[in-house]
Amino acid sequence: MHKRKIEVCFTPALLPLYDLKNAIVVVIDIFRATSSICFGIENGAEAIIPVGTVEECSAFEKEGYLLAAERDGKVVEGFDFGNSPFAYAEDKIKGKTIVLTTTNGTHAIDESKKTAHQVIIGSFLNLDAVCDYLKKQSKDVLLLCAGWKKKFNLEDTLFAGAVVHQLKADDYFLDDSSIAADDLYNQAKDDLVGYTAKTSHSERLKKLGIEEDIKFCLNVNITKSIPVLVKDRLVRL
Amino acid sequence: MHKRKIEVCFTPALLPLYDLKNAIVVVIDIFRATSSICFGIENGAEAIIPVGTVEECSAFEKEGYLLAAERDGKVVEGFDFGNSPFAYAEDKIKGKTIVLTTTNGTHAIDESKKTAHQVIIGSFLNLDAVCDYLKKQSKDVLLLCAGWKKKFNLEDTLFAGAVVHQLKADDYFLDDSSIAADDLYNQAKDDLVGYTAKTSHSERLKKLGIEEDIKFCLNVNITKSIPVLVKDRLVRL
Repeated sequence: MHKRKIEVCFTPALLPLYDLKNAIVVVIDIFRATSSICFGIENGAEAIIPVGTVEECSAFEKEGYLLAAERDGKVVEGFDFGNSPFAYAEDKIKGKTIVLTTTNGTHAIDESKKTAHQVIIGSFLNLDAVCDYLKKQSKDVLLLCAGWKKKFNLEDTLFAGAVVHQLKADDYFLDDSSIAADDLYNQAKDDLVGYTAKTSHSERLKKLGIEEDIKFCLNVNITKSIPVLVKDRLVRL
Repeated sequence: MHKRKIEVCFTPALLPLYDLKNAIVVVIDIFRATSSICFGIENGAEAIIPVGTVEECSAFEKEGYLLAAERDGKVVEGFDFGNSPFAYAEDKIKGKTIVLTTTNGTHAIDESKKTAHQVIIGSFLNLDAVCDYLKKQSKDVLLLCAGWKKKFNLEDTLFAGAVVHQLKADDYFLDDSSIAADDLYNQAKDDLVGYTAKTSHSERLKKLGIEEDIKFCLNVNITKSIPVLVKDRLVRL
């Protein structure tokens, strides 16, 4: 039997180095895009359509969809909302379709869908659901960190490490990035909020006054659904 | 006063994201290029000329230099030697000029020299010398990991972490990569040989029968010189 492998790609800029044909890609943008997407799908959003640019997002206006656009941590002027998870509560999005563009997360989805076997969305909110699903598939796993403007970031890496931590007992081959992510997660896991407080992104989000968002995104296993990309739309798996 | 920053670039593929104008770049390829370069300069090599390709290396034949070429961990056929540190002992290279091309390390040097304020070479062999030098300069620091074929690797990251570990008390700004490297080094520092044994590169080198090289490259502070790039030649600083 083919020994499955787990790899961690620390930024979308490195994605061309990976062969995704036989891989399930888990897109990770903890602060905040993929956390919000998980929360929105759990709360009954019909679909979330990730797009790369603000212009593409605007183009959906006439469809009657909710439009969400974030750049550099802020809601883009003129849009319904950005990627604060609190905007994805049940009373706001149940039964709705949302078009979303963000600084890092939606770009990562866009890049991976070109060649991956399947693209799903992960966050601490649905950690166990994602791991349980991956274990049951006979596929390689690529954990794709959205990072910050193409650079490495810690919070996405920690989540990747949390997945490696659960999967590694199942006899996967781990690359060096997976080993590193797992070891970092081991150091951080008992105090995710404290550990991530020292990251650069966390500093940046604090300045924007969205510390409550950060705390929310570090809730572990409060949702059970897995958003999966089907024909350019994220829906419940 | 400008607060200096330390950044870690995990692979040369990400180097274009960094502004190097005010930075000293430390090139890191622990297994084995930069370890061997440090050892060679310490042992009295007049200069080591890093070049990108095997062809460029061959072109120096008529100059009477020693030619060293490594690809995929092996000496390229027809060359004097590759990048095993034992080939850089005093009796072999004192007073000589060596032209060197390797799979990852020389490419990293090549990329960084284009815009950096200064390029120096680091390895566990000259760890303290590198740190002491950096602390005295009013420059930013970019720790450039050569990685493995453009991907992240653990051993280069651990050395980057070792440098961050020594410098961070001096009030540098650390990016997320530096924090991660430091935390990984903290986990590994009491048993570098044991920790790196689990890396993918170490597996690969074991198959090549060069475990003695690996152990040698994890010797800490056995040399005092710092190789610095001056007009395309690495010489003693």
